[in-house]
Amino acid sequence: MREVFQAELKSIGDELIQMSKLVAEAMERAYASFETADTDIAQEVIAADQRIDYLQNSLDERAIDVLALQGPVASDLRMIVGSLRMSASLERMGDLARHIAQLTRLRYPNQVAPARLVDTFKEMARLDIKIAHKVTQLLETRDLTIASEIIALNTSVDKLHASVFRAVAEAEWAESAPVTADATLTSRYFERYADHGVSVARKVNYLVTGEWDPELSAALDQD
Amino acid sequence: MREVFQAELKSIGDELIQMSKLVAEAMERAYASFETADTDIAQEVIAADQRIDYLQNSLDERAIDVLALQGPVASDLRMIVGSLRMSASLERMGDLARHIAQLTRLRYPNQVAPARLVDTFKEMARLDIKIAHKVTQLLETRDLTIASEIIALNTSVDKLHASVFRAVAEAEWAESAPVTADATLTSRYFERYADHGVSVARKVNYLVTGEWDPELSAALDQD
Repeated sequence: MREVFQAELKSIGDELIQMSKLVAEAMERAYASFETADTDIAQEVIAADQRIDYLQNSLDERAIDVLALQGPVASDLRMIVGSLRMSASLERMGDLARHIAQLTRLRYPNQVAPARLVDTFKEMARLDIKIAHKVTQLLETRDLTIASEIIALNTSVDKLHASVFRAVAEAEWAESAPVTADATLTSRYFERYADHGVSVARKVNYLVTGEWDPELSAALDQD
Repeated sequence: MREVFQAELKSIGDELIQMSKLVAEAMERAYASFETADTDIAQEVIAADQRIDYLQNSLDERAIDVLALQGPVASDLRMIVGSLRMSASLERMGDLARHIAQLTRLRYPNQVAPARLVDTFKEMARLDIKIAHKVTQLLETRDLTIASEIIALNTSVDKLHASVFRAVAEAEWAESAPVTADATLTSRYFERYADHGVSVARKVNYLVTGEWDPELSAALDQD
């Protein structure tokens, strides 16, 4: 019985790791489509998001089965409930990558990003993808120094997000209103993707230490 | 033992209802601050969001205790796990109301909304508040006709959200880029608030019927 239970716990952990890899790939591909206005890649990202949604449902069902059949207690129970929260964050990361792909498809053959924000969005995407890779490592190792690295990366994303609003407010900003609206949403999507990475880091930290880290809590969407 | 368990389940249900009332009030107050550029009310909304966050944590802890101590099975177990999902949706509704209040405070003494979108945002806020009230009723009664009403209200919010992007793209749109960016975010916050209301409706529907309703699933953030 105990062995079956440990195997089930491991499966839940493996599914989270798999989800984190898929959302990293989703953002890599979404940004590739965004950068080059490639609707074929955008379409693939949109289609692949269903797989992430499916994995979340599968993980949830498995968690409920474990809760029902094994009656876990204490730390195992917290791990399972925490997994439900982490799967929800990962699923949202997939959605946000999909939103980037959808904007790309909507504006084709135009680029979504105005020239002066190309580098900013490139860097936001790079940081988001790095965060997703760090989330995978954190789930695999539970090494909490990685959680701190995720926080630092998120801080950089937040600064870039703020810089987009400063750019929009500058006198030299001469983009059309729809381009401004798209840039606002794009920045918001990148920023929220990073936030959800922090949510996962925060949850892992809690599961390992049993305490909420105030630094991790403060890093979330408090703007 | 069974009586204690039923009392615990009822407490979880009551906390969800309380959260839904608080997020309705949060949006009512956030919109009042937004409409009149009233930073005092905005500040109250921002401060009150902590209470909603606290309630979510409290509900989660209670759910974990019930899972640990009572070892519920079948439908009760699904209800408890579903409550964790619903509390997360309600907590995000509180965050989104807070974002409206924060934009209001940021732009004071200016209004966030340009004149031509005042009526649109007024209607989005009215629909959002109505959705939150319907969520309370749905949690209290589990009457699934209310879930369908929430879907219909969300469809109206989505249409208004799309109309904001059409307005921004019209030749007559003459607002500054920061006003355009703010209007984009405001519309997105109203739209996401409604989406989370649908998420709760979808979860209640699932708990009552045991099946995902395709209409409810399709209503979510698929834009």
